[in-house]
Amino acid sequence: MAKKIKASKVSKRTRNPIRQIVDNLKVEPNKDKEFISLALGDPTTHGNLKIHQSCVDSVTKHLNSFKANGYGPSVGTLPAREAIAKKYSGGFANYVAKDIVIASGCSDALNLCIGALCDDTQNILIPRPGFSLYETLASSKGIECKFYNLLPDQQWMIDLKDLEAQIDSKTACILINNPSNPCGSVYPKSHLMDLIQIAIKYDLPVIADEIYADMVFEGHEFHALASLTDKVPILSCGGLAKKYLVPGWRVGWICIHDPTDVLSEIRDGIMNLSQLIIGSNSLIQAAVPDILATDESFNKENMKQLQGNAELCIELLQGCPGITVVKPQGAMYLMLKIEIEKFKDITDDVDFVEKLVQEQSVLCLPGQCFQCPEPFVRIVFSPPKEKIHESVSRIKEFCLNHLK
Amino acid sequence: MAKKIKASKVSKRTRNPIRQIVDNLKVEPNKDKEFISLALGDPTTHGNLKIHQSCVDSVTKHLNSFKANGYGPSVGTLPAREAIAKKYSGGFANYVAKDIVIASGCSDALNLCIGALCDDTQNILIPRPGFSLYETLASSKGIECKFYNLLPDQQWMIDLKDLEAQIDSKTACILINNPSNPCGSVYPKSHLMDLIQIAIKYDLPVIADEIYADMVFEGHEFHALASLTDKVPILSCGGLAKKYLVPGWRVGWICIHDPTDVLSEIRDGIMNLSQLIIGSNSLIQAAVPDILATDESFNKENMKQLQGNAELCIELLQGCPGITVVKPQGAMYLMLKIEIEKFKDITDDVDFVEKLVQEQSVLCLPGQCFQCPEPFVRIVFSPPKEKIHESVSRIKEFCLNHLK
Repeated sequence: MAKKIKASKVSKRTRNPIRQIVDNLKVEPNKDKEFISLALGDPTTHGNLKIHQSCVDSVTKHLNSFKANGYGPSVGTLPAREAIAKKYSGGFANYVAKDIVIASGCSDALNLCIGALCDDTQNILIPRPGFSLYETLASSKGIECKFYNLLPDQQWMIDLKDLEAQIDSKTACILINNPSNPCGSVYPKSHLMDLIQIAIKYDLPVIADEIYADMVFEGHEFHALASLTDKVPILSCGGLAKKYLVPGWRVGWICIHDPTDVLSEIRDGIMNLSQLIIGSNSLIQAAVPDILATDESFNKENMKQLQGNAELCIELLQGCPGITVVKPQGAMYLMLKIEIEKFKDITDDVDFVEKLVQEQSVLCLPGQCFQCPEPFVRIVFSPPKEKIHESVSRIKEFCLNHLK
Repeated sequence: MAKKIKASKVSKRTRNPIRQIVDNLKVEPNKDKEFISLALGDPTTHGNLKIHQSCVDSVTKHLNSFKANGYGPSVGTLPAREAIAKKYSGGFANYVAKDIVIASGCSDALNLCIGALCDDTQNILIPRPGFSLYETLASSKGIECKFYNLLPDQQWMIDLKDLEAQIDSKTACILINNPSNPCGSVYPKSHLMDLIQIAIKYDLPVIADEIYADMVFEGHEFHALASLTDKVPILSCGGLAKKYLVPGWRVGWICIHDPTDVLSEIRDGIMNLSQLIIGSNSLIQAAVPDILATDESFNKENMKQLQGNAELCIELLQGCPGITVVKPQGAMYLMLKIEIEKFKDITDDVDFVEKLVQEQSVLCLPGQCFQCPEPFVRIVFSPPKEKIHESVSRIKEFCLNHLK
């Protein structure tokens, strides 16, 4: 028998916890009930939320010009970078084209930032619960992940004392995510200012994953971290994916906020790393200026729908025994706290998810996918209202069936 | 003054030799002559070569369906993988969808292959002269590059003795590029069979960069390496970029040829690594089956134009003192050998390129960009015939002006 070829250590340690947990769910949905997934953070799945026609028109225009098919610079085309710089400037953040690096989706933007900022002898502070990709990216590079807690009973704000306690001489940077996946929280300005004070105290740069920028509910306001400080160097990561409803188009970016001029090495490092895969799709990049010029009423309408869906979830789960909802403030996620002790036969969040699929054909992600230390499940509330109604009603029925 | 933030070691060692050399060219073009670049391997720049209308129509169709905007699997969508598997099967290569991984361009495909196959304690064998990205990718990961020579006086075939001599206990794999950038060579079947014997002898997998597959001149035939062997595990990298004239669209792929069933760890490793940036643009992936179904007469016509251009270069440089052309057999590149000793004031290939820009406003890439040990310059012959005529005539004039 031929000798097996061994895979590299790096590829072996590059793990996506969501895939590991979901692939190991050993259950089949109930055949008598339509399968509904509330698991995937993709707002385009059902057709109730879709890209604005003007954006489609812009891509069509560039497609038919035959002039947007060639290589661009690995950091992105100038018109796209200029448009991003203009759109995301504000407060202390005053970007020009050279401050923008376009990447193959926000994932690649995060990959470039973590890759440029952190050595494999260092650590990075990431939120718990938090988007699993942060850990995947850092661990792949041999960078230690240190988790700081978010507080469910304080609208998932950062436990700043816990965050500060994690910082040591090997900490390369802090990563925050606002608005948050999986929590659906939107940080108030004062909270961000407190975070900034910690970054100043320890002289640390911050990676701000702001892919859900502007996706906030009425009564809440999104503050870009960079807009609030003229002292802390910030790499803000964003993209077209969520707000413009094209996650598959893979256009993300880094906005480099460098008010004290300390990031020249990092700029070079990001540029070097961007050359490994030579950037994002040229056709979509050509349309970026038009896409960013989409009337803001488009986002407002979408957020109205998402807020309505979130409120429906909360309404349906009101009085549902064993479940506590942390009310979301934006994005498209909410977390349900599972009071395990109230159920007769649910052992943890993964068990909850498995049995829910098996009995009710509804899929959510267990909090373990997000390193959540307590039993939670994440619900994506972007599907159409009727699917939300049906699936969340089934979750309630499930809870009632399993009560002690 | 605030403390500068240090960039990671990885980002510092990630270097693109082309950028380093070209950025350091300290000369301005001659203002009296139109600037013509024969440097960039992008066939779409001038509009004489462009994507087939049927491909544009397919992208338009999917754009207007609003169904190709969401996340797909990080390894690519099933219909695209099936279409690639079908198109590239042949001989001993018999692919099904699970053998295909779609990546963000062929660069990313190479990145995934090198990342999965090689540890930072190992080495990889790469061609000299060769596409500079191989070294960039490997060095970024701390993998040692060992260069094997190509033979200019044997149509740039591999010096197989040199290749064999480079293999040691730390060699993880051999990388070959056929048809070749920067050489424009197309390996005959017998040469590939000799290479396969070496891979068998040393039990080594091969990464075959076949991005210029089918881009061959009359009288030459492209043989996919995997089609020729039922013994050697091969990762064949390809993409839409060159043959379909959309390098900016960033759709590449890996075809995993595993006739002896030794690549299961490598398949997992590639899948793990693919999750870091979650794959290629969904819209273009949706169009891949249609794009691959483009009538082959499209490629034939394009190759006729490219062959005509190559022949024009050779004709114009016939009898040009100090220059020897190695006749290309495909792709879109040719290498000019510079006989330094025949010139009165040219010190090396970089000096040739600098002075050529300064006097004749023609940019080529020096062989140093490709680790070429002897003085060569690379010409891209995809621009329109009149640009080729003008620029190559100027190269001849330049040579005459600088003769001893």
